[in-house]
Amino acid sequence: MPHIKVNEDLPGIRSLMAFSPETAAPMGELANLLLRTNEGLTMAERELIATYVSYLNDCFYCQHSHGAIVTCYLNDHNELVNQVIKDLDRAPVSDKLRALLHIAGSAQKGGKFVTDEQVKTAKRFGATDRDIHDTVLITAAFCMFNRYVDGLASQTPTDMSSYPLRARQIAERGYGNHIFINKQPVAEEQQG
Amino acid sequence: MPHIKVNEDLPGIRSLMAFSPETAAPMGELANLLLRTNEGLTMAERELIATYVSYLNDCFYCQHSHGAIVTCYLNDHNELVNQVIKDLDRAPVSDKLRALLHIAGSAQKGGKFVTDEQVKTAKRFGATDRDIHDTVLITAAFCMFNRYVDGLASQTPTDMSSYPLRARQIAERGYGNHIFINKQPVAEEQQG
Repeated sequence: MPHIKVNEDLPGIRSLMAFSPETAAPMGELANLLLRTNEGLTMAERELIATYVSYLNDCFYCQHSHGAIVTCYLNDHNELVNQVIKDLDRAPVSDKLRALLHIAGSAQKGGKFVTDEQVKTAKRFGATDRDIHDTVLITAAFCMFNRYVDGLASQTPTDMSSYPLRARQIAERGYGNHIFINKQPVAEEQQG
Repeated sequence: MPHIKVNEDLPGIRSLMAFSPETAAPMGELANLLLRTNEGLTMAERELIATYVSYLNDCFYCQHSHGAIVTCYLNDHNELVNQVIKDLDRAPVSDKLRALLHIAGSAQKGGKFVTDEQVKTAKRFGATDRDIHDTVLITAAFCMFNRYVDGLASQTPTDMSSYPLRARQIAERGYGNHIFINKQPVAEEQQG
């Protein structure tokens, strides 16, 4: 049961964002900026970092929400996500992405766990400053989203068929507030 | 030395926000919404939660930046911050704030560390759903800010006299982008 009174018809972070639409707006905007661009890292790579961090943080809702988005982008039946989680060093990803996922795994523990050596390795495999910046900030942002979701004990759907449906919506429309809060876009409410 | 090439004249998160002004905008907005209101929790109480979490995350820059803001609000020569860090259970704070700081200490470890018992205790001492929500989200947000700062090894000022000067600016003007990026407000650039 959630620690605070929220709309229990909404799952996970969506119930919290409906509780607090003011803070939902910049959080949705940040998710959009970090996850909905192919500049440097592809959208699938960005979602894979988010999924891996959510797995490390043991956040069922975020892991499965974002894992479903990776799967939706790649159309691969969850295979890549499962391989990365099971054995990152053997997963079929580029050397650059593997190096960035190792940076993500360190930053998930704490900022100071990221080593010069890890950054050098990523750069050697072609990672730009922007790629490294985005990897660390996606990791940091999911350390926020994951704690928000589980720190308030929000509802987690156990019907696994709901995740791919939601993933398709996000793949098509992004993380605007309309996605989180349904039907009543915050931006329109605030302007109206 | 920072892991990526940033303006080294800017300290901590400000150098990163200048590197990435697009993501700086919603992050600054979120900080403003969470820290610059007296609704429920006072601004000093909110900054104290941010400082405590940054201390637990071992983020020198954020701990001292936000600790200086608490001190600026309370005009108390850093005493309350030091007492909370040294011994939360004996620090001179209200029972409600102490209970919320215990929730923050749990959420810093991970969302699932927050217990029903901790939430019940906070409610018994008068915490509202909004207070509990804001405590968890401030904690979660600083788990992001702290990882962003240290995960990219941004510069940390060791001249301790710089923190109170900066704190006074933020106490007076809030966390708009102009605060982070100096002189050239992002909003104006984007509109122009």
